[in-house]
Amino acid sequence: MYKLIKKDKKTKARVGKFTTQHGEVSTPNFMPVGTSATVKTLTPEEVKAAGTEIILSNAYHLMLRPGADVIKEAGGLHKFMHWDGPILTDSGGFQVFSLSKLRKIKDDGVEFQSHIDGSRQFITPESVVEFQQVLGSDIMMVLDECIHYPCQRDYAEKSLKITTDWARRSRDWSLAGARDTSSDISSSVASSSLAMTQKKQMLFGIVQGGAYLDLRKQAVEELIEIGFDGYAVGGLSVGEPRELMYEIIDVTLPLLPEDNLHYLMGVGTPQDILETVERGADIFDCVVPTRNGRNGTAFTSKGNVKIRNAKYTKDNLPIDEECVCPCCKDYTRAYIHHLFSIDEILGLRLLSLHNITFYAKLMKNIREAITDDRFAEFKKGFLTNYKEKEK
Amino acid sequence: MYKLIKKDKKTKARVGKFTTQHGEVSTPNFMPVGTSATVKTLTPEEVKAAGTEIILSNAYHLMLRPGADVIKEAGGLHKFMHWDGPILTDSGGFQVFSLSKLRKIKDDGVEFQSHIDGSRQFITPESVVEFQQVLGSDIMMVLDECIHYPCQRDYAEKSLKITTDWARRSRDWSLAGARDTSSDISSSVASSSLAMTQKKQMLFGIVQGGAYLDLRKQAVEELIEIGFDGYAVGGLSVGEPRELMYEIIDVTLPLLPEDNLHYLMGVGTPQDILETVERGADIFDCVVPTRNGRNGTAFTSKGNVKIRNAKYTKDNLPIDEECVCPCCKDYTRAYIHHLFSIDEILGLRLLSLHNITFYAKLMKNIREAITDDRFAEFKKGFLTNYKEKEK
Repeated sequence: MYKLIKKDKKTKARVGKFTTQHGEVSTPNFMPVGTSATVKTLTPEEVKAAGTEIILSNAYHLMLRPGADVIKEAGGLHKFMHWDGPILTDSGGFQVFSLSKLRKIKDDGVEFQSHIDGSRQFITPESVVEFQQVLGSDIMMVLDECIHYPCQRDYAEKSLKITTDWARRSRDWSLAGARDTSSDISSSVASSSLAMTQKKQMLFGIVQGGAYLDLRKQAVEELIEIGFDGYAVGGLSVGEPRELMYEIIDVTLPLLPEDNLHYLMGVGTPQDILETVERGADIFDCVVPTRNGRNGTAFTSKGNVKIRNAKYTKDNLPIDEECVCPCCKDYTRAYIHHLFSIDEILGLRLLSLHNITFYAKLMKNIREAITDDRFAEFKKGFLTNYKEKEK
Repeated sequence: MYKLIKKDKKTKARVGKFTTQHGEVSTPNFMPVGTSATVKTLTPEEVKAAGTEIILSNAYHLMLRPGADVIKEAGGLHKFMHWDGPILTDSGGFQVFSLSKLRKIKDDGVEFQSHIDGSRQFITPESVVEFQQVLGSDIMMVLDECIHYPCQRDYAEKSLKITTDWARRSRDWSLAGARDTSSDISSSVASSSLAMTQKKQMLFGIVQGGAYLDLRKQAVEELIEIGFDGYAVGGLSVGEPRELMYEIIDVTLPLLPEDNLHYLMGVGTPQDILETVERGADIFDCVVPTRNGRNGTAFTSKGNVKIRNAKYTKDNLPIDEECVCPCCKDYTRAYIHHLFSIDEILGLRLLSLHNITFYAKLMKNIREAITDDRFAEFKKGFLTNYKEKEK
């Protein structure tokens, strides 16, 4: 599904594209986060017009609310939320281990309490794939355990063993669903998953292993042996120093098959994206553009604008003079400052829209720079301007 | 500024239009409320696309936040909020007497404490017009005292005396600003107000008098003697029974000049609008469509849909099958129910948008019905369907 188009001459940066049932995505690219079937504050039309080619949603959240029945009856996640482009759904492994209470890893899956209503839930690698098949997402992620930093060696080893086992079971279940409707899977599930799998939902493996580089290497080898449509690096941005994150990526990415997509989960800031594109990463997701937008922080090529700052009270310039999004075309800093001062929703909308536009533009600029063999210069120029005003 | 086009044969309902510096408005019409320079949750483009021809904003709120300086520097309210259609600004009389603390009516104006930060404020009829001239609204409202229901006769009489005095002073100040830049008004104010008045901002008087019909009559006579560009009936929907409100309107509206606009302030529900269009009212404003939208209640021709209701969990119909707004075209009740269940902003946006579309459509249907001499039938048909499901 992934086609490598061009490799940068000086770095590991690469331009490519991948094809899904809901359209093509050029890489490197960034996925705005629509955790609960909505990219917060925005309509799908706005998200698309901002330049977004693919969004991320989350199986853990959707499983709890609104649940499989509702989305199945709506005809899948795309129809439910009125987004007709590609969707990647995270498995919820990260959420099970960060949000839920009393989680307990058993042989066959994880028992946990919902962070919303305390209800007892039980998921398995199989049920998580099955749920994503009901969602009909273009890319499904396997259930994994995302360990935090720091983490003891023996726990990391034990965890990786489980994660790899789950990855194999996810792959097996996905293939079985595609092959065989008369398996022991309940009939409604089987028919639904067959239908979905026939639509070529892809399944990605997730490289874990914490900050132990040999475990990362082991994880990659085991996942490749199982075989996936693409590979993600998880367990990043979980408390480790930035330089250690880059080191993990430096070791891990070159081990991944060149003809598969490389997805860095939960990354990141513009700086992180540039640093890791340079190391060979293809796609990213992060709550930063939308969450920062709702908190009143706008990304610009000259650094961040914290719009609540009193200095913007009478500033009739746009958020970013170089940006052509509706927020920058139609509204001033003074007006958006006013909206945030009085907690008006339009303010959250405008900065969310601007920020995902900024991210989409950044990714486009990165692709063009790699194509033109000037990625290193682009990165240097961007970070020089960007840092300058962040101080 | 108002042109009567057609009178209904059976009722006092009438179709007309009025012209402002920012465009024409057909009547009867409804103004969505943009209290603080934003129609809550929506962009001006969305408000316009919904069929809205004029919006209302509020001098009291804008005076406190962001204040005259900010809006003046932005070049007026239209530019500040990026709405290029007509704006009517309420004076804030209602807010001074309902929101603020420790208000004290003095000879020359009102002293009150801001409901936001407790700061001491003093406004006069003149300063309120002056502020609306800085805003550059198309229709300015005079400062008035909006008394509540019930109200003692002697208080109502005393209050009306003040309100009429303020109305005269507002008119005088507005005319003086237009005529004479070398008056004793400070030069910056004078030049700004001259500029604004040259742009033909209109000034409306407000009929008060509580539930005392003879005071209402007296108020109308005094206001007509002073002379305004249009006349509003205020002090409605302040706790009085609905039938009494209609009685006040029955007595008051026929006394207003036929060749001026009749504005019913703070009214109302679809039913109230139909009942009072029948009595000769031309324009309306009310927070109901936007506030109800944010609370999860959608207006439809068949009655209200309370979208949080569990029965909508798997309902894949649109909010209103007869509506063509983006909310009804693109999203299902099940999805919007989900958004409200998880407190997602997109839900507030979609129902706000639908509700103002519903109001704009209602007003269009009313105008067409009057034009076609079938207003009474339209009203009866609407209320029959609408009530049916409201139970």
